[in-house]
Amino acid sequence: MSRWKPDGRGRLEKAALELYNHKGFEATTVAEIAGRAGLTERTFYRHFADKRAVLFPSDNPLPAILADATASAPVPLPPLEVVTHALIEAAPVYEEREDLVRQRQAVIAANPELQERELAKLAALAATLTQALRERGLDTTTAALAAEIGIAAFKVAYERWINDPDEHTLAQHIRETLDTAKHLTTPAEHAAATDNVSFTGQQGTA
Amino acid sequence: MSRWKPDGRGRLEKAALELYNHKGFEATTVAEIAGRAGLTERTFYRHFADKRAVLFPSDNPLPAILADATASAPVPLPPLEVVTHALIEAAPVYEEREDLVRQRQAVIAANPELQERELAKLAALAATLTQALRERGLDTTTAALAAEIGIAAFKVAYERWINDPDEHTLAQHIRETLDTAKHLTTPAEHAAATDNVSFTGQQGTA
Repeated sequence: MSRWKPDGRGRLEKAALELYNHKGFEATTVAEIAGRAGLTERTFYRHFADKRAVLFPSDNPLPAILADATASAPVPLPPLEVVTHALIEAAPVYEEREDLVRQRQAVIAANPELQERELAKLAALAATLTQALRERGLDTTTAALAAEIGIAAFKVAYERWINDPDEHTLAQHIRETLDTAKHLTTPAEHAAATDNVSFTGQQGTA
Repeated sequence: MSRWKPDGRGRLEKAALELYNHKGFEATTVAEIAGRAGLTERTFYRHFADKRAVLFPSDNPLPAILADATASAPVPLPPLEVVTHALIEAAPVYEEREDLVRQRQAVIAANPELQERELAKLAALAATLTQALRERGLDTTTAALAAEIGIAAFKVAYERWINDPDEHTLAQHIRETLDTAKHLTTPAEHAAATDNVSFTGQQGTA
């Protein structure tokens, strides 16, 4: 068994995601995950508190990345650009694990309880961003608003990336989505934007 | 008992919120709620499926209000203005029950599981808005983005309204918050806006 150990965590994660997608999150047991990975239950519990922790690991690096990127963004940047910068800094965490991320998303989409937990995690990221923006000197409302709008745009960008048949990166989707957000308040520009877009344009042309 | 019946639901709701705040949501039983309201458990279950349904009623009027207001908004309005219009149309649902809404919010803030459910309800409202915007002819991304940003701004406006020591209405907070959102992408305007605001301005002056 020891020769497998170095990648134990990765193999447990892969086995868990396959089982969650194949037979459902609720129906999958830790014993089955460990068995499929060729490891013991004891090893599973050394890496994860329970089967939900495979989907929501306690050592999630995103809060620290968002906080650090927000703190180190250039000072004269407008609030939403700071948030965009931070989200793009966090994109590689998803991009580097694209296949696993897609599988994870399918599991969550199939289970309302996991969806609620995912929303809670996104809300926690918004709170992290709000705090980091306040530490840059922004007032509470502006900080909360920029953070919540940033996370809202991230949700849309992430959904687009997951379902993107082309080769665009998550970072590109984040940038595009937040650029689109700027046009949402201007009727003329918006009309022009949607008239010219053939792939993601008006519903009738999509 | 019959003389109380016409307001049975309202009295059950009031009794439940008081108990949830006083001894905690988990620790409160349906028997206690009914007893405090001077009604039977049977009557409770005629109005609510369980004690969580007091906080998340199945006959929530908000989805229909948001969908109708989105459909009936003037056609040349930009997407985020349509959403603002819809959210302001929904504001009276909260404003007319201000004391109950405050109590409800305190119960939810004290319980992570209820917070997750509240986030799920807000996500469902965003989905309702997205669908209504698509029916106006907007492409999927623009519709989803405007809806998610609208709900993100609503969360901030709602939080401000709940904690507002002044007499501002929820509708005013929604309008102000979404106006603030427009300045988040422009550094100069943003700086000017926060420099001039003494109550909700830069953290140092708040």
